[in-house]
Amino acid sequence: MSEIRDKFLQVYSVLKSELLNDPAFEFTDDSRQWLDRMLDYNVPGGKLNRGLSVVDSYQLLKEGKELTSEEIFLACALGWCIEWLQAYFLVLDDIMDGSHTRRGQPCWFRLPKVGMIAANDGIILRNQIPRILKKHFRDKPFYVDLVDLFNEVEFQTASGQMIDLITTLVGEKDLSKYSLSLHRRIVQYKTAYYSFYLPVACALLMFGENLDNHNDVKDILIEMGVYFQVQDDYLDCFGDPEVIGKVGTDIEDFKCSWVVVKALELSNEEQKMLLYDNYGKEDPACVAKVKELYNTLKIQDEFLEYEKKSYEKLNKAIEAHPSKAVQAVLKSFLAKIYKRLK
Amino acid sequence: MSEIRDKFLQVYSVLKSELLNDPAFEFTDDSRQWLDRMLDYNVPGGKLNRGLSVVDSYQLLKEGKELTSEEIFLACALGWCIEWLQAYFLVLDDIMDGSHTRRGQPCWFRLPKVGMIAANDGIILRNQIPRILKKHFRDKPFYVDLVDLFNEVEFQTASGQMIDLITTLVGEKDLSKYSLSLHRRIVQYKTAYYSFYLPVACALLMFGENLDNHNDVKDILIEMGVYFQVQDDYLDCFGDPEVIGKVGTDIEDFKCSWVVVKALELSNEEQKMLLYDNYGKEDPACVAKVKELYNTLKIQDEFLEYEKKSYEKLNKAIEAHPSKAVQAVLKSFLAKIYKRLK
Repeated sequence: MSEIRDKFLQVYSVLKSELLNDPAFEFTDDSRQWLDRMLDYNVPGGKLNRGLSVVDSYQLLKEGKELTSEEIFLACALGWCIEWLQAYFLVLDDIMDGSHTRRGQPCWFRLPKVGMIAANDGIILRNQIPRILKKHFRDKPFYVDLVDLFNEVEFQTASGQMIDLITTLVGEKDLSKYSLSLHRRIVQYKTAYYSFYLPVACALLMFGENLDNHNDVKDILIEMGVYFQVQDDYLDCFGDPEVIGKVGTDIEDFKCSWVVVKALELSNEEQKMLLYDNYGKEDPACVAKVKELYNTLKIQDEFLEYEKKSYEKLNKAIEAHPSKAVQAVLKSFLAKIYKRLK
Repeated sequence: MSEIRDKFLQVYSVLKSELLNDPAFEFTDDSRQWLDRMLDYNVPGGKLNRGLSVVDSYQLLKEGKELTSEEIFLACALGWCIEWLQAYFLVLDDIMDGSHTRRGQPCWFRLPKVGMIAANDGIILRNQIPRILKKHFRDKPFYVDLVDLFNEVEFQTASGQMIDLITTLVGEKDLSKYSLSLHRRIVQYKTAYYSFYLPVACALLMFGENLDNHNDVKDILIEMGVYFQVQDDYLDCFGDPEVIGKVGTDIEDFKCSWVVVKALELSNEEQKMLLYDNYGKEDPACVAKVKELYNTLKIQDEFLEYEKKSYEKLNKAIEAHPSKAVQAVLKSFLAKIYKRLK
């Protein structure tokens, strides 16, 4: 496993070097140096789960047959395209949210020399994806589907981000807009497509599959993505800060979290008033009142119930899939996230 | 001509309505309404030169043969894709530059309800381009080239913007970095590709041409784009504010304008010192000193000389082109910009 990780990181160096010498642009020394630093700062510093899962999935589709070094390189390159996509979203999200830190360091736009140039750097990251795809996949029969896939998933992610932004930031903190169906819609589009569907779709395309024949796989992965985000929302409130590595602030930030939409669903009028009055406030006394209500409503039990049902439903759907290899891919994803504590 | 313009605007309504009902995303009422307003605010309010020139160019390539209504629609749709691209760049550029007005109204991000959501709106605009292309061109033999073209041109534009931002904003106002070659590089990538090459390349693809066979056309259009931007820089300083519709502030803004790089080239050490001391300052006395030096150096004569030579060179290159239809396309572009006063 750490062998794959090493290989994956080597491919990053190759891709970066190709991008810094892209013949479609005449770099100045300054701009090449800028780009070098910008890439190292923003692209490889995450957990790399999304990227590595392309390689894992492709390997499982091959059912034990050893991959050629070209196949490994290409699967890694596609994995990095997803990491690039993620970096692009994060750089821009941090600007929009006015965030301060990301992956244990200041957000890129917070660096004094960077500032608003970060917005264009985000755009550059996005534009490097088609450069990578063109260089390494232009002559493959699945090239056009690959480009379409990345475009479609980016579109869905940006659209999910849009409804998140306009319901969270515009409506002047109006809790009445929050519901399980809105939560699901935001999560499905903003997170699930690019984090769960995209890696497997890349592996399937490389394996020669037509994605039109795999809508069932897409549905299962989207469902898994939603489940993953519900866990995330749950852990933000109930997880151990020592384990998850941060102190959750979804209540203070007025986030459309699964926890609050579930609480709204279970609340009587009086409890709703309490949420309306205290959700989205910095005051620790308000936060404490919200958490107390969550306990009264037994949100933790609700979550355990949701987790159990989701897991069963997902497992059943996976077992029903005709291909053992595809089942293995989906099971590997599910195993990674079921009952996770961080 | 205004008939084509009417048709072009009708196509905008069709495209907008398709995007507001895109099955790849489940809109909420709020988000559909937001998008509707965002599109009307940012997409159709410009001069539409870039978009209309796709239709003009395609018509010229057809050498008088009447276009079918499908051809007109498709040429307009490609034209709008360029206008969408422009809108995306402008929304994000205005955020990065901290601009206040655009096309006679407040910049989108300046609207109180919008703010930083504008960054995601820019991304949405960008993502709608592949949606339009996929819906209307997916079954055309030139689809993959079209998608590659838009990706490549966007990459070049963002890269040009990058060198502009890092030389203008980072180097702490260091005039020694400004030169004719840097100016050319910024202009070529940031403006010429998408404003001049892209419309004609779209028309050529629709006409069934392979762009690899038209590097000469690309070179001519890039040259024209550079010439166009030099005019722009000249008019910012020497144009009539009544005619160009704004008061130029390139000197105050420390812009890497053709005027200042030409002045630097012609300056002796003493004159260079004057520029270093006074360029990029708000103080009207500093601006006046810079303008006085421009007069001493006879920059206006230099510009007339540059304009004459560019025009002759472009004309000669156009005349050398083997196809009369392509010549007509290029001549029509040149006629629109030669000796323009705004």
